[in-house]
Amino acid sequence: MAQRAMAAGPRMSPIITLLTDYGTADSYVGEVKGALLSVAPQAVLVDLTHDIAPGDIASGSYVLGRIWRRFPADTVHLAVVDPGVGTRRRALAADVAGHRFVAPDNGLLSDVFAVAHADVVSLPIPSEASRTFHGRDVFAPAAARLAQGAALAELGAAVSDLVHLPPRRLRTEGADLIGQVVHVDRFGTLVTNLPSSAMARGALIRVGVHTVAVQATFGDVPPGSAVAFAGSGGTLEIAVRDGRADVVLGVARGVEVRASAG
Amino acid sequence: MAQRAMAAGPRMSPIITLLTDYGTADSYVGEVKGALLSVAPQAVLVDLTHDIAPGDIASGSYVLGRIWRRFPADTVHLAVVDPGVGTRRRALAADVAGHRFVAPDNGLLSDVFAVAHADVVSLPIPSEASRTFHGRDVFAPAAARLAQGAALAELGAAVSDLVHLPPRRLRTEGADLIGQVVHVDRFGTLVTNLPSSAMARGALIRVGVHTVAVQATFGDVPPGSAVAFAGSGGTLEIAVRDGRADVVLGVARGVEVRASAG
Amino acid sequence: MAQRAMAAGPRMSPIITLLTDYGTADSYVGEVKGALLSVAPQAVLVDLTHDIAPGDIASGSYVLGRIWRRFPADTVHLAVVDPGVGTRRRALAADVAGHRFVAPDNGLLSDVFAVAHADVVSLPIPSEASRTFHGRDVFAPAAARLAQGAALAELGAAVSDLVHLPPRRLRTEGADLIGQVVHVDRFGTLVTNLPSSAMARGALIRVGVHTVAVQATFGDVPPGSAVAFAGSGGTLEIAVRDGRADVVLGVARGVEVRASAG
Repeated sequence: MAQRAMAAGPRMSPIITLLTDYGTADSYVGEVKGALLSVAPQAVLVDLTHDIAPGDIASGSYVLGRIWRRFPADTVHLAVVDPGVGTRRRALAADVAGHRFVAPDNGLLSDVFAVAHADVVSLPIPSEASRTFHGRDVFAPAAARLAQGAALAELGAAVSDLVHLPPRRLRTEGADLIGQVVHVDRFGTLVTNLPSSAMARGALIRVGVHTVAVQATFGDVPPGSAVAFAGSGGTLEIAVRDGRADVVLGVARGVEVRASAG
Repeated sequence: MAQRAMAAGPRMSPIITLLTDYGTADSYVGEVKGALLSVAPQAVLVDLTHDIAPGDIASGSYVLGRIWRRFPADTVHLAVVDPGVGTRRRALAADVAGHRFVAPDNGLLSDVFAVAHADVVSLPIPSEASRTFHGRDVFAPAAARLAQGAALAELGAAVSDLVHLPPRRLRTEGADLIGQVVHVDRFGTLVTNLPSSAMARGALIRVGVHTVAVQATFGDVPPGSAVAFAGSGGTLEIAVRDGRADVVLGVARGVEVRASAG
Repeated sequence: MAQRAMAAGPRMSPIITLLTDYGTADSYVGEVKGALLSVAPQAVLVDLTHDIAPGDIASGSYVLGRIWRRFPADTVHLAVVDPGVGTRRRALAADVAGHRFVAPDNGLLSDVFAVAHADVVSLPIPSEASRTFHGRDVFAPAAARLAQGAALAELGAAVSDLVHLPPRRLRTEGADLIGQVVHVDRFGTLVTNLPSSAMARGALIRVGVHTVAVQATFGDVPPGSAVAFAGSGGTLEIAVRDGRADVVLGVARGVEVRASAG
């Protein structure tokens, strides 16, 4: 017991999470894990997801933005949704409130950068790196070095002119607050960017051609009915009890959502 | 087990398994893992599956029922297939022969409870918990506390009036034993609830409009032919060699299966 | 590596990787993980993939062949794509340059065996093993014993007459080098067996009815255009920038690819 406690410590069993759009049928996830464990054999690898839609930077940013603060500080998050690999986009490592990140400079860290100050460096691309697999040859080695205790400054030179996704804006029209559907989850639930703190029970939400009332939860409406409620990510969500809201309401990501006092 | 205790100690590297219907494309699995590791940073997380069909409690119960006894005692199994989240269903923690479970009280532990005595407590729902994501806000913290060494009684008050799925019944008609297809696996194999110990080689199995003979294994029939055999879960299975039995025989979960002496 | 040996020693936190065609919706992956951790509770389990197409030995061999050398020596690779389970095919354990493998004797290790000398033993099949789930009952126990420090010779008797997949041959016709598409990845990229070292920039690649020029990378062609380049696995790949080459070019695995001097 004492042995492991002594051996472990935060840098002896560091956590490295993986978020990619690699899917799970190719060799890529395995090659990245091997690259990580070859440099940081004591690291604990935690799969977040490899099923971000290919090249969907906005989805990757949203999903990572919901997860990272749930992990202990010192965690290293390896995030690779990288349609621009092989172009001149930069590779980044960042420190945000003690959490560490490696990712391409393409907006993938936008939801992380949006909420806290970030120290960011640009990773050099070694000449021997593959032109198309920086996850294995650039990001994994950097993540492993961070996990082994390297300081951010050891990995590259500080940069500040970062690529950001266009922010998901809220606007008002009279008394209405207007946002959008920012994510559709596995259950067909529509996640919006309307802050749930601003919604009183009974407020009306218009999405597409439908109007849905804000309730406390699923249980307040009968099966098959739509309901809006304060979601687990701090924003308003729209679901259909025992059904799929995306199908029943005919709504996809990007659709406008309008909240009016009930 | 004494060996294991000496090697690492149950509390220093406790195992927490995860079985959910969250899928792998959203933030939910990652948020749960972060919640677990924030409380129990030394825990070893083991993904069982996140691909239980959304809300399919019966499938989740079947899959968990096949797995849990394969793990060392002391393992904590976090199981969340929870279509009733946001209603008044209770949240449970249980101890079954030294194996620990956290799950909603909706029948998801039916296959576990069916085979051994369970001590069960009801978890309080903190007022700050999300109404729709108890996996992160209720079950993960409870699982992490169990992994950290908490006793079941520290987590909640004992309960005994649990929700159970309707049992998968066997019945007899004359000399026939009648059960059903309880699972169709990735290979299209039909898993039944007919105990394979009761089947003699050469017995005839009727499923849908087909009759299949019991053999020792795949190798006893030519490619493309159906065969029934003692499956790896202790019950009779029906497969098509080098094919999919569900497609070839036109059979899905729930279909009646009848065994007759050959 | 010296650091690793000091911190934990190869036997204290051995790595076991898993590559299967079990999918992720059944109990099989979980049962295998339980079987591994019951024998080797300190092992670190690393999922490579469970999404090899059912029974696709060639794909499993290709994917494993790209991954294994990325892991530290001493790693144990559990590979199960096993359509012949229940027939007389043998079960193997192997040591290749200090990396260990357990797998059926059906060609699944062909890409591993192709590049280095292998010491191989045949695993006895215990009479109590399921006839259809050797992943759990034969391969996992053997992998766990290797992880616990067992020598290969303790697991079975040496064998040398192994099953190999037909090699992916290259041939020449005049000045042309002719190979094939050996893998199509999640992004629709066509991975060939033409060695990229042999291709000069500007060489022309014919695949199906299309001719594609070799460039350094994606960035050298406009979006929507096809490009051939040195892939991350050491062979030529054909992609469509911001698109799917398999769809745009109408090409699948097995299709001939011909390289001519440009």
